[in-house]
Amino acid sequence: MEKIISSIRKTDESVLKEAQERTANLIMPFRAMGRLNELSEELCSIYGTLTPVVENCGVFVMAGDHGVVEEGVSLFPQVVTCEMIKAFLNGYATISVLSKQENCKIIVSNIGTKCTFDKIECSFGDYVSKNVVRGTKNFTKEPAMTRQEAIKSVKTGFEIADEYIKRYKLHLLATGEMGIGNTTPSAAIGSVITGNSAEEMTGKGTGISDKNLLKKIEVIKKGIALHQPDKNDPIDVLAKIGGAEIGAIAGSILAAGHNGIPAVVDGFISTAGALIATELSANIKDYIIASHCSEEPGHKKMLEFLSKKPLLTLGLRLGEGTGAVLAMPLIKQAANMIKNVATFAEAGVSEA
Amino acid sequence: MEKIISSIRKTDESVLKEAQERTANLIMPFRAMGRLNELSEELCSIYGTLTPVVENCGVFVMAGDHGVVEEGVSLFPQVVTCEMIKAFLNGYATISVLSKQENCKIIVSNIGTKCTFDKIECSFGDYVSKNVVRGTKNFTKEPAMTRQEAIKSVKTGFEIADEYIKRYKLHLLATGEMGIGNTTPSAAIGSVITGNSAEEMTGKGTGISDKNLLKKIEVIKKGIALHQPDKNDPIDVLAKIGGAEIGAIAGSILAAGHNGIPAVVDGFISTAGALIATELSANIKDYIIASHCSEEPGHKKMLEFLSKKPLLTLGLRLGEGTGAVLAMPLIKQAANMIKNVATFAEAGVSEA
Repeated sequence: MEKIISSIRKTDESVLKEAQERTANLIMPFRAMGRLNELSEELCSIYGTLTPVVENCGVFVMAGDHGVVEEGVSLFPQVVTCEMIKAFLNGYATISVLSKQENCKIIVSNIGTKCTFDKIECSFGDYVSKNVVRGTKNFTKEPAMTRQEAIKSVKTGFEIADEYIKRYKLHLLATGEMGIGNTTPSAAIGSVITGNSAEEMTGKGTGISDKNLLKKIEVIKKGIALHQPDKNDPIDVLAKIGGAEIGAIAGSILAAGHNGIPAVVDGFISTAGALIATELSANIKDYIIASHCSEEPGHKKMLEFLSKKPLLTLGLRLGEGTGAVLAMPLIKQAANMIKNVATFAEAGVSEA
Repeated sequence: MEKIISSIRKTDESVLKEAQERTANLIMPFRAMGRLNELSEELCSIYGTLTPVVENCGVFVMAGDHGVVEEGVSLFPQVVTCEMIKAFLNGYATISVLSKQENCKIIVSNIGTKCTFDKIECSFGDYVSKNVVRGTKNFTKEPAMTRQEAIKSVKTGFEIADEYIKRYKLHLLATGEMGIGNTTPSAAIGSVITGNSAEEMTGKGTGISDKNLLKKIEVIKKGIALHQPDKNDPIDVLAKIGGAEIGAIAGSILAAGHNGIPAVVDGFISTAGALIATELSANIKDYIIASHCSEEPGHKKMLEFLSKKPLLTLGLRLGEGTGAVLAMPLIKQAANMIKNVATFAEAGVSEA
């Protein structure tokens, strides 16, 4: 773990400055493309070049199950985690349909589910089965995972992402996930790390009732009170009230930084993974691009804590990686723009 | 004009209802893709089918000059309108660079500029020269256009768009524009039609100073006070305080409706065109998709008046059609999603 963390270098500040200079000279009113100009510059800084290439993209869908579903925090039965994994890899789930059109690779990894299959007939994408746990424990009664399991979830996510980044020569990693009940550990992680209350961090997930929302908040409070996770020790937080797929998301984000490519973070659960990653490595933050702000009220709080401005706000609350894939064209255009739009001098256009 | 307006039919409400039913059955929590679910349904309603195809896209960049620039309302010299037309068609302006990557046709039309060329060597896109005026008049002194010129600008925009929609078998029309000074007539149109004050509708355009912003507001107030445009007569508004390219934008939007395809509206100036179009035809409104909300403060007011939710909010203030082209992938994905994501029954996934 120490080796992974120390391998992540700061992004290139001198290239960032050069990129800002180029932006100022492009044939448009000063920074008239707003957030897209910033994004161009962030990409230059991540890749260390003024001519960034963003073509090969991959979304890493990390899957896990959660013991805390015993408490009635989710609307859907737990079996849906495994049913959806099959749907992802047969091309008819939302993430598959969006990824196909975006020409984005999809790598679905079983990190902590209760699924009984080890292989799947895939008509689309790759399936990796590397269970760290067979579902976490119910954190209202015992820690979700041991410390060793938590570390292993991060490492496994790192290793899978590192392997597929290299195999597919990816220029960009997107995070995604599947796991019935996983907004509950995500809200718990968010509450501990950002310091916001469980009330502020908790939403209706797949669409639970007002009554069950109150129960979900109580469940989260109970878990935090019982285990007292140390907010300065992200592995402790992940182990006690987190989930294996959330650890793997953190690991995949670290793998993006390790390989010098951006990590495009999807929604609420993915951003819980990003909180773990940024608490492990301060340097990783500049590799992270927030794809969207979801309907889960706690997501906005997490993004504020990370000082990240989301590219999209479309009322999404599906997860899977869908928001991250929807944001890819904007990222590709930001790279394209700084590379190919002419400067006033190049174009012979009169300045202000 | 009457013939154009009467040709625009209402979008299909029965297909809209069928699309909403399909959305409710897709393998995701109820409407978990938020605004994108709505967009899928809007597209079904526009095309009259549950299997919408959005592939061939075209952006129509309407160009015009403005007599009101004499009043010092813009940061850039007027010659930039014509310089930028050349940049668009040589592939190195922002709209060209974005359109190329999006595989979007670009049709640049000179509707009312002072440019002295009639043809351009195009390495990219099409150029149409159909001047209705050679720059509008300074509306602080006289009407920007005659009523006949205003009607002709709308008709010309309609005819150009109609021709190229058919030539390129476009599934989607995007609006765009170029015209130094054109945030001034746009704010004036916005103020008259939406009923908001000139102060609320006016922003810094390409980036004028606080002092010049006050001057710009006075210029707009003066024009409105002098000509008293009739808010119930959009041609009167367009003639007295508008611009030829704004009329052509309105015409191009009507052409989208006439051909049963969506009109994706870009920023502040394009939305001023949309205001003219919707005042001419109540039916056109359902064909309009707001691509983004720009930095111009009046843009939000216009979108509210039209009851349109923008897909993107990225602090853009360039125009040209750039925001509309950036929104295209979301629209393509919305069509893809409702067509290709399975229902619970189709996928054999357990329901809530």
